[in-house]
Amino acid sequence: MQQFTTIADQRAWSRQQIRAGKRIGFVPTMGALHEGHISLVQQARAHSDVVVASVFVNPTQFDNPDDLANYPRTLAADAKMLEGAGVDVLFTPEAREIYQEGHCTFVEMVGPLTDKLCAATRPGHFRGVTTVVTKLFSIVQPDVAVFGEKDLQQVLIIARMVSDLNLPVEIVVAPTVRDADGLAMSSRNRRLNPDMRERALGLPRGLQLANRAFEHGERASLKLIEAVANELLVHPGVDLDYCNVVKLSGFQEVDQADDGCVLAAAVFIDGVRLIDHIHLGRETFPVALDD
Amino acid sequence: MQQFTTIADQRAWSRQQIRAGKRIGFVPTMGALHEGHISLVQQARAHSDVVVASVFVNPTQFDNPDDLANYPRTLAADAKMLEGAGVDVLFTPEAREIYQEGHCTFVEMVGPLTDKLCAATRPGHFRGVTTVVTKLFSIVQPDVAVFGEKDLQQVLIIARMVSDLNLPVEIVVAPTVRDADGLAMSSRNRRLNPDMRERALGLPRGLQLANRAFEHGERASLKLIEAVANELLVHPGVDLDYCNVVKLSGFQEVDQADDGCVLAAAVFIDGVRLIDHIHLGRETFPVALDD
Repeated sequence: MQQFTTIADQRAWSRQQIRAGKRIGFVPTMGALHEGHISLVQQARAHSDVVVASVFVNPTQFDNPDDLANYPRTLAADAKMLEGAGVDVLFTPEAREIYQEGHCTFVEMVGPLTDKLCAATRPGHFRGVTTVVTKLFSIVQPDVAVFGEKDLQQVLIIARMVSDLNLPVEIVVAPTVRDADGLAMSSRNRRLNPDMRERALGLPRGLQLANRAFEHGERASLKLIEAVANELLVHPGVDLDYCNVVKLSGFQEVDQADDGCVLAAAVFIDGVRLIDHIHLGRETFPVALDD
Repeated sequence: MQQFTTIADQRAWSRQQIRAGKRIGFVPTMGALHEGHISLVQQARAHSDVVVASVFVNPTQFDNPDDLANYPRTLAADAKMLEGAGVDVLFTPEAREIYQEGHCTFVEMVGPLTDKLCAATRPGHFRGVTTVVTKLFSIVQPDVAVFGEKDLQQVLIIARMVSDLNLPVEIVVAPTVRDADGLAMSSRNRRLNPDMRERALGLPRGLQLANRAFEHGERASLKLIEAVANELLVHPGVDLDYCNVVKLSGFQEVDQADDGCVLAAAVFIDGVRLIDHIHLGRETFPVALDD
C-alpha cells in the first residue's frame, strides 16, 4: 500500500491509473476505522480495479471545536487495517494541504435534505461534508465512491450533490454494520466506557421497539418517537438531539408514518453524539429487547 | 464539428478523448458570439488537442428575468463561427438538461471576491456562474478552459474556485478584444443602436481618461472615478451601476490607487448593462479622446 500526503502525489497516481484504463474505487473516511469502514473497502474493491482510502478529519464539518479536538485519531492502526483489507493507496493530507490560505469556496445545498435532523442541530456540518467530498473527488478522481448507510442523511446529500453537480462518480451505499449487541459501528463508540455503552444501546433498542409498534399498526409519529425516548431517557446523562419520522421520498417529516419512512435519531451519551435510524417495516436490528 | 445536446453524449465523447490521451480544451459561452469568443477558441486550440465550446444561457446567473429573456440567442450563426474557428464539439444543452428537477446544490464563494462590483449589484449572479462552470467542467472534463479577461471579476472567481475545489482544470485568461472604436466586445453590444453605442463609448473613454490622470500622478480613487462619471453621465439614459478602484491583490476597494489596481465600472445605456475595466498605469485602449 502506498501512502500519499500531498494533493500533487495523489493526483499523479490517479492520472496514471486513468491512463492505464483502471477503474478507481474510493472510500473517504475520517479515520478511527472499524469493521464498518472495512466493509466499505470491500464494496469499493468489488466495484473497481484499484482502491484509494483517505483518512482526513475534516475541520469544516465540525460545528463544535471540542468535538473536533476529541475526534479519535488512530492513523497507524488505520493504515494497518486498510492494508490488510487490500487498499492500494492511503491518502492522508494535513488540513493545511486541503484548505489553502484564503479558501473561500463551498458547496452548499438548500432545501429539505439540509434543513432537518443533523443539518438542523449541526449548522454548517453538511456544507463541510459536501465541500470536502467535492474536493476529494477532484483530487482522487474515482469512478466509484462508497459511503455507509449509517450516515443516511449524508448519503442522500452526497448522492443529490453528485447528481446536481454532474460529478462523474458512481455512489455505492454499503449497509450499516453493527456490533453483536446491536450498536451501529461508529468511530465515536471508542469514547464509550462500558456503562455509557449500555446506555447507548437504548438507541438501537428504542428504534427496534418503535419498529415493532409500527409493525403492529402504530402509525402516529409521536408514538414511535416516544418509544425511542422512553428507552433512552430513563438513564442519566442521556439527551436526545433529535428523533423524527421522515419520508424518504421528498425527505419531509411526517405525522403519520408509512413504510417509505425512516425513524432517525441522534443522542448524546455523556456528551458523545451517536446517530442511528431504522427503515420502518423493513428492518430488524440484532439487539436484545427486554420483553 | 459534432454537436451534442445531452450530458450523456458529451460525457461519452469526452471519456473517449481522455482514453485516447487527448487533451481537451474548453470554451464555455452563453452564445451570441463575437470575435472575443473566437480569440478564446484560438487560445483553447493552442493549449489542447481537441476543443469543446458550449453555448448555454445559464438561467441561474441572471438576477433579472428581463435580462435573461432579452439575452441575444443566435445559435445557427454561433455554430457557423465555431466550426470556422476549428471547434471539434459544440455542446448546447437545454436548461432542463442542466438543471434537473429538484436541483438544490450550489457552489458558493464568500469573502472579498464576491462582496463588491458585479457581486454587489447582481445578487446571486456569481453563485450561478460558479455552479454552472463546476457542472460544465464535470461534464466536459477539460484539461484547460479559457475565459475572457473582460469579465475580470468572473475570471478571478473561477480561478479561485478551481484552486479551492481542486478541480483538475487549468484556467487560461485571454485578453479583452475591442472593436476599432475601443468598445470591449460583448454579446450585449448587439442591443446598442448607433446612438446608444456612441454613449457607450464614454465607458472606455472615461477609463482611458482616468488612466491618463493616474499616469500624470493622480492617486485619489474618487478623482479617477469622477473622470469616468464625467465622461458618461453627461448623456441622458446613462446610469452608472458601479465604478470602483480595486487592488487586485486581496481584491479590496482602495481610496488611493497604485499600479496594482484596476478601475472597474458597469454602466446601463438605456437599460443595456455593459462592463469594462482598465489596469491603471499598465494599459491603453484604442479609443479616441476628444482633447
